[in-house]
Amino acid sequence: MSFSVRILGSSSALPTSQRFLPAHLLNVNEHFFLIDCGEGTQIQLRKYRVRLGKINHIFISHMHGDHVFGIFGLLSSFSLLGRENKLHIYGPEYLEDMLLDHLKYFRSDLTYELAIHKFSCHHSANIYSDKHVEVFTIPLEHRTPACGFLFREQGQERNIRKEMIEKYMIPVSDIVRIKQGADYYTDKGQLIKNSELTLPPFRQRSYAYCSDTIYTESIVTYIQGVDILFHEATFSSEDSKMAEATSHSTASQAAEIARKAGAGKLLIGHYSSRYKDIQLLEKQAREIFQETYAVQDGDLYEVPQERIFGDND
Amino acid sequence: MSFSVRILGSSSALPTSQRFLPAHLLNVNEHFFLIDCGEGTQIQLRKYRVRLGKINHIFISHMHGDHVFGIFGLLSSFSLLGRENKLHIYGPEYLEDMLLDHLKYFRSDLTYELAIHKFSCHHSANIYSDKHVEVFTIPLEHRTPACGFLFREQGQERNIRKEMIEKYMIPVSDIVRIKQGADYYTDKGQLIKNSELTLPPFRQRSYAYCSDTIYTESIVTYIQGVDILFHEATFSSEDSKMAEATSHSTASQAAEIARKAGAGKLLIGHYSSRYKDIQLLEKQAREIFQETYAVQDGDLYEVPQERIFGDND
Repeated sequence: MSFSVRILGSSSALPTSQRFLPAHLLNVNEHFFLIDCGEGTQIQLRKYRVRLGKINHIFISHMHGDHVFGIFGLLSSFSLLGRENKLHIYGPEYLEDMLLDHLKYFRSDLTYELAIHKFSCHHSANIYSDKHVEVFTIPLEHRTPACGFLFREQGQERNIRKEMIEKYMIPVSDIVRIKQGADYYTDKGQLIKNSELTLPPFRQRSYAYCSDTIYTESIVTYIQGVDILFHEATFSSEDSKMAEATSHSTASQAAEIARKAGAGKLLIGHYSSRYKDIQLLEKQAREIFQETYAVQDGDLYEVPQERIFGDND
Repeated sequence: MSFSVRILGSSSALPTSQRFLPAHLLNVNEHFFLIDCGEGTQIQLRKYRVRLGKINHIFISHMHGDHVFGIFGLLSSFSLLGRENKLHIYGPEYLEDMLLDHLKYFRSDLTYELAIHKFSCHHSANIYSDKHVEVFTIPLEHRTPACGFLFREQGQERNIRKEMIEKYMIPVSDIVRIKQGADYYTDKGQLIKNSELTLPPFRQRSYAYCSDTIYTESIVTYIQGVDILFHEATFSSEDSKMAEATSHSTASQAAEIARKAGAGKLLIGHYSSRYKDIQLLEKQAREIFQETYAVQDGDLYEVPQERIFGDND
């Protein structure tokens, strides 16, 4: 079960020759979730050899062009490739109106069904759920309504050890109970403890994407203990006034959020094009939160699968 | 006086990891004209170190997404960079409606004035003119109304040789006439032939952009003797049926147009993503028109400046 995020674009509003516009691709067990879709996202997806047809869900954080202008070409390319799967797009108010206005002129004959799901940026909500993962919005504070997204794996049952099924000839009818933690009595009345029959479940891995936002501690509640936090760091500490004026964050502020949330790892990005050397931003963040990584286009960050061993295991 | 075209994107509708979407940049004496604006054009412009503020005129051939989806980000970036110069966009019907619909949601507070000029794709017209260059539309045949563009330098006067002004002490009042071809009489009545006083004018250089179109000889009239012809070559000869079905051209058909027009050089591009090796397309075209070049992203083609020496020079 993979759980990884690929950085498709690490710039803020102005792309550079090295940095594409914001887009992240989350891979949960080979199900792909696209988060934001700046101009050129489809080009990056091809560069990193992602099959476009594998993307069925797109999440748009807010209605600023650098986070959304790649969607027009992507919708069009899906059709050119003969897509038939329904495509789900999640976004704040106006995304639907904007897309429908756009589609009046282009590819009104989409080869696939498009479902646009609105969310409010005033409160957190569970906006998506399948058997692998749940997605929650994280209200952010920006110049326009904006939400981050928390992706969290679904809770897993304990895994039954196949060799034990054979050893004790456990009937199928008992397996569900055992996976839920029950012990087992053999035909001869022998007690077999659950810890012998099963392996503990895997830990629920999580990824939070918080961009764009001014420094706001209200985020912290939603992302406690997250494995990987991406938090925008448009500016360095020296430019904190500019961060405030434009409703963005500094690298140190991103680190402060990661520290308060007890995140496993902090990724920073969404850099202003004024910084040629982003190591400065990483350095400033690491003074507050050591496990900080300043992302580059193409970077892949993975959360390994780990079992949660309890006292009885 | 430069006269060159930079290929910003050489793919057709689906970009590849090697090819961006259609956009060409014509440089006439450091005045830049952007022709088509596929997704990612602003990224390519940065890659090739073009100062965005130098672009004041954008020409859109037709309303298919691969030729126009880069304009949203470019308009936005112009504002972010504080542009004040008026921006002129030339395009077919609906371009204006589409852009105005789009701008309802994004950057309605552009920092600069936007002038959108409509043209008809039913007949050729002179749509732009300044002291260096004129632009004419070239009606094409595609699935949607489409026009190519002919850029032609303005006719130049003869250039007076500075050393002759000093040698014969020619007064300023005579210079205009001499540039137009008149001879000169000195105070002592000596006849100085114009050919001694001046250099012949530079030849009017020209560039034609023809994309997207099915093979149509009606183009030929508009581009007789053009220095560089770009003609789309989406398909190889083997796929000519597909070319016809989708209103595109093969490389051989592009070459046929170049041959009939007596072009100086033919550039082909707008390749279908099915061709990994575009040398095949170049080879097929060269069988008909030797001076064919299959373009790659980033290529720069220049037309050198040449004087037209007449019998008297």
